Amino acid sequence: MSTTTAVPAGYRALETGSLAHWLGGLPAACERLGGAPARWTVREVGDGNLNLVFLVDGPAGSVCVKQALPYLRVAGPSWPMTLERAYYEQLYYAAVAPHVGAAIPRVFHYDAELHAIVMESLTPHVILRRGLIAGHRYANVGRDIGEYVARAGFFTSDLAEPFERKFERLARFAGNTELVRISVDLIFTDPYLESPRNRHTRPQLDRDVAALRADGAAKAAAAELGRRFLGETQALIHGDLHSGSIMVTATDTRVIDPEFAFYGPLGFDLGAFLGNLVLAWCAQPGLERSPGERDAHRDWILDQAKAFWTAFRDRFLALWREPAHGDAWPVAMFRAPGDAAALESARRRYLDALFADMLGYAACKMIRRVVGFAHVADLDDIADPARRARCERSALAIATHWLTRRQECRSIDDALAVLPDRSAR
Amino acid sequence: MSTTTAVPAGYRALETGSLAHWLGGLPAACERLGGAPARWTVREVGDGNLNLVFLVDGPAGSVCVKQALPYLRVAGPSWPMTLERAYYEQLYYAAVAPHVGAAIPRVFHYDAELHAIVMESLTPHVILRRGLIAGHRYANVGRDIGEYVARAGFFTSDLAEPFERKFERLARFAGNTELVRISVDLIFTDPYLESPRNRHTRPQLDRDVAALRADGAAKAAAAELGRRFLGETQALIHGDLHSGSIMVTATDTRVIDPEFAFYGPLGFDLGAFLGNLVLAWCAQPGLERSPGERDAHRDWILDQAKAFWTAFRDRFLALWREPAHGDAWPVAMFRAPGDAAALESARRRYLDALFADMLGYAACKMIRRVVGFAHVADLDDIADPARRARCERSALAIATHWLTRRQECRSIDDALAVLPDRSAR
Repeated sequence: MSTTTAVPAGYRALETGSLAHWLGGLPAACERLGGAPARWTVREVGDGNLNLVFLVDGPAGSVCVKQALPYLRVAGPSWPMTLERAYYEQLYYAAVAPHVGAAIPRVFHYDAELHAIVMESLTPHVILRRGLIAGHRYANVGRDIGEYVARAGFFTSDLAEPFERKFERLARFAGNTELVRISVDLIFTDPYLESPRNRHTRPQLDRDVAALRADGAAKAAAAELGRRFLGETQALIHGDLHSGSIMVTATDTRVIDPEFAFYGPLGFDLGAFLGNLVLAWCAQPGLERSPGERDAHRDWILDQAKAFWTAFRDRFLALWREPAHGDAWPVAMFRAPGDAAALESARRRYLDALFADMLGYAACKMIRRVVGFAHVADLDDIADPARRARCERSALAIATHWLTRRQECRSIDDALAVLPDRSAR
Repeated sequence: MSTTTAVPAGYRALETGSLAHWLGGLPAACERLGGAPARWTVREVGDGNLNLVFLVDGPAGSVCVKQALPYLRVAGPSWPMTLERAYYEQLYYAAVAPHVGAAIPRVFHYDAELHAIVMESLTPHVILRRGLIAGHRYANVGRDIGEYVARAGFFTSDLAEPFERKFERLARFAGNTELVRISVDLIFTDPYLESPRNRHTRPQLDRDVAALRADGAAKAAAAELGRRFLGETQALIHGDLHSGSIMVTATDTRVIDPEFAFYGPLGFDLGAFLGNLVLAWCAQPGLERSPGERDAHRDWILDQAKAFWTAFRDRFLALWREPAHGDAWPVAMFRAPGDAAALESARRRYLDALFADMLGYAACKMIRRVVGFAHVADLDDIADPARRARCERSALAIATHWLTRRQECRSIDDALAVLPDRSAR
């Protein structure tokens, strides 16, 4: 993130006033929007850090235009960011689209020069994180994301694909180093040492943070997960699958913002979602206006965590039990009479390892949101620092437990039993 | 291996009669050879399956020219083979050269059009496998190869390098799919099922082979190692580090033929060398002319296996204990008072995992040489099938034990205690 990104010739930031004219030259956008460009309305709605986002409405429909900016928007031009992340985002969408159906937005056009993606506009969807903070429920979100990670993960793994196809894509995604560098630094390194990029609720968490940074076992566990983040190519992963990368309605769930995608451990995506659900759970007592107001919401969040893992496991196993065509665990090797049991036992071990990975990566994702650079609104929205610190402290305790003792958790119920009961509010 | 390789324009097989003329146009070769091309002598000496190999002597010195053929030499044009393997071979040499010193041949020139490498001629070196079969000893070979794998592996791992450099090279080596495909099929798949490419000593081993192919636990262990072969990018590995890829004199050890190189589990290289030493050990009773003639040689081979692992472990740990600059296990995270112990404990776990990997991959490499497509001269040189089968059966027993029970082996002595005592001859 310290390198300067050269802005290529031909790149310009798109603008509200001229966007319709540009879109008018794209047949796929015209078909979607209908009518003449002069009738289209354009709003810039980006509230992220990295991009311009426009919503465009026409007589027949809408599109969303997402354009990469050459710097981290929240920091301004002093923090340059590669424009190439738009390339990796659409490359990820294209890779998983055949397997996940409508769980991602449809991509209508990618402009490599402007680093802009024209895609389905998701309305009336809201960002899941905002919904969780507001206390809203989305009946299927846990199950939907579990299904999503199972499908995207399985079909891009060596269980499903000849390795030649994987290696070809792996080589392309290996270029996504600027965004992977952010993950390496901000998730696996900075939170565990003193860095000017870190922040935490002071002075309330000073001792907790000092204890974490002196905890050799916790740091060793985080470092080992970080090593495997870079050294395993289990599947094409989204790379940033938190509740801010998911848009929902009461009945629909969509995954967005895959610009951190690369080939890594699938447990990283599982852990991102679980960890952010548990952060939301930790934040509820800080967000409620009267004691107990959010108790039922908290319980619902835990139900989603269970539904998430269960749906993931069941779908992944079901996909693997269908005749698979990958080079890992070749079907042809397991046709002798006793082989079915050996193979099923191997599948269970594979899922057990993914479960432990999920808890470990969830822990890393939770810790970095409490003591690292980028925090989450769930906790930041709690105005009173003492109250916020209590929520954050419970998140740190859960995360540290999972980081160092996840092998003791044999089931999702075991894992969630670590969460403090309500009296700890 | 079923795809047809198009021979690119500009490619032609080099010939003894015109090689000196071609070399005469290469300043690096002229400097090494000295004098006029007309004075150089050229011999074609390739006995491998894949390449033409020429040795060229001049007044000042010698060079070796290795050129890829567009088919598997032993099978002829019916088994096409990518010429690109020469590219990966020189790419591997270039990547490890800064770290392993003179343990690989010096490369003077690479011709991308002819797919030919002009490199140091290794004389009076012999192929280690031939030396082991002949009953010769090379005092340092185990230690030297242990040092080699430690250096090449450590310095290309995430422990030593920023991941950006690794990802760049990983992307390039991800193109080496034709040779990786050979490993996937011939090491991790075919030996465990009926395939016309397989052969074994019939009828003596029929029951042993049938038992292996009905052994769900052994096959599951092999499949899991195969999955990790494709799904871990621990280090840049040689990919074919058996005793036929090592040239020796009484005092010098060189590693050659890295065309199978890619980013994979380091235990694969460790296992290739260990497995081939143990195959040589198994073959000795079949090669001796009188009972007990090779007993001391057998013991010496085991000593080399121990020296190999010990040298690897000690060098790898020593390199890791020096301030490292990789993104895995970042040094800056472990500066608190209690951290040294946590870090050292992690290093031990890392080495323990590599040890188990070594035994597992050694087992896979041994099994494929007894029941798969390509066998080893150590065993094939035993003319009497009953005698050969006894040696091969002991290799299968050791390998099956390591495959399924390697976690019980806590040390190299434990692992080698599995080898049957001499009375089993």
